[in-house]
Amino acid sequence: MPKDHSRPATAETYKRTKRTKVRIHQRADYARDTVHGILDDGYVAHVAFVHEAAPVVIPIFYVRDGESLLIHGSRKTRMFKTLATGVPLCATVTHLDGLVLARSWFHHSMNYRSVMIHGIAEEVTGEDARMDALWKVMEGIAEGRAAGSRAPNKQEMKATMILRIPLDEAVAKVRRGGPNDDEEDMELPYWAGCVPIETVHRSPLTSRSMQVDVDVPKAVRALETIGN
Amino acid sequence: MPKDHSRPATAETYKRTKRTKVRIHQRADYARDTVHGILDDGYVAHVAFVHEAAPVVIPIFYVRDGESLLIHGSRKTRMFKTLATGVPLCATVTHLDGLVLARSWFHHSMNYRSVMIHGIAEEVTGEDARMDALWKVMEGIAEGRAAGSRAPNKQEMKATMILRIPLDEAVAKVRRGGPNDDEEDMELPYWAGCVPIETVHRSPLTSRSMQVDVDVPKAVRALETIGN
Repeated sequence: MPKDHSRPATAETYKRTKRTKVRIHQRADYARDTVHGILDDGYVAHVAFVHEAAPVVIPIFYVRDGESLLIHGSRKTRMFKTLATGVPLCATVTHLDGLVLARSWFHHSMNYRSVMIHGIAEEVTGEDARMDALWKVMEGIAEGRAAGSRAPNKQEMKATMILRIPLDEAVAKVRRGGPNDDEEDMELPYWAGCVPIETVHRSPLTSRSMQVDVDVPKAVRALETIGN
Repeated sequence: MPKDHSRPATAETYKRTKRTKVRIHQRADYARDTVHGILDDGYVAHVAFVHEAAPVVIPIFYVRDGESLLIHGSRKTRMFKTLATGVPLCATVTHLDGLVLARSWFHHSMNYRSVMIHGIAEEVTGEDARMDALWKVMEGIAEGRAAGSRAPNKQEMKATMILRIPLDEAVAKVRRGGPNDDEEDMELPYWAGCVPIETVHRSPLTSRSMQVDVDVPKAVRALETIGN
């Protein structure tokens, strides 16, 4: 029986493979919790695949579903047409957390949290499974959107492809903290430190086209408190 | 004579190629100004290449230099070793600007600005050109860092590879504004609008290891006013 990637896994870590080995091994983290946490903090993955002998990398909205990412889009796009044939892909999610400014050029760096996934996407098929996956996608955009907007009709469902990217071969890469300057540079007359960078939600803007009297949903308003 | 990608170009737009054609053509923008503006607003590009028959996509700091991006890193990394052999690459820079919440699931969307570049990287060689490129990299991290920290010694220079990614085949893709709901959905009792998302700089944090009395540089302090 094939693995159900929508279910939680039992092992606490992902296996380290040749492709997910990280050169600076102190920055690698194979713990599922770390990988999930980074994925759950993001909206956009950069998905790479090969098309006509050249790599292509495209930003796409995703939501994590257990041990997989769900992505969806028009069946007509090159990306979905290509990925559905089962070609190898790489998906990377990155949060830039800060600029690291050192006493030397060489030790300037970035603080970040990223996840890299290697694998092959599987199309989600079957009416119920597709509706369930899109429900999760909607809830990933903002809590309550699935029940808070019109579900797709037959035509819209038909036009949409849903792909599941399994989290079998995944690794997190994280850098935190201040600059790692060399001992002999510590007394140089240069400032060293960090500039934190954050991604924040602003107040929701109601569409000017609203013709009915509906309040901004609570969960949408609550987004503003995340990371502000 | 080969093209000097560090110089400005004369044409106002990039040529549309098979690879940079965008399906929803209203979202495509080939104007150099648009592409440059999006690139200059970012720090991290997702660079894809093919390694052992599979795509790999890695986040990396870049700075724009005229009609090119400069990236740098250790000569020992798989990415720099591979790119230096002249394999095709794709580099994508994405800014997520907001969640677009529509009256229907189908019209939920994201506001974003992204740039996709196809090409082949060229190694920057020659002592002066390499130092000049790294100077620009430092200034790209934060203004004043090149003069405000120790320049690399011979060993550090030797360990560093600098690659130039030419902006010959590039396209911007942009979505702005509110949801594009269907006419027949406009009176549904659902809220529709946007949640803007922004990337902001926080106050600089001085390294606890500072042993000399140096103020936070003005340009570093000024970062906080960008996007806050």
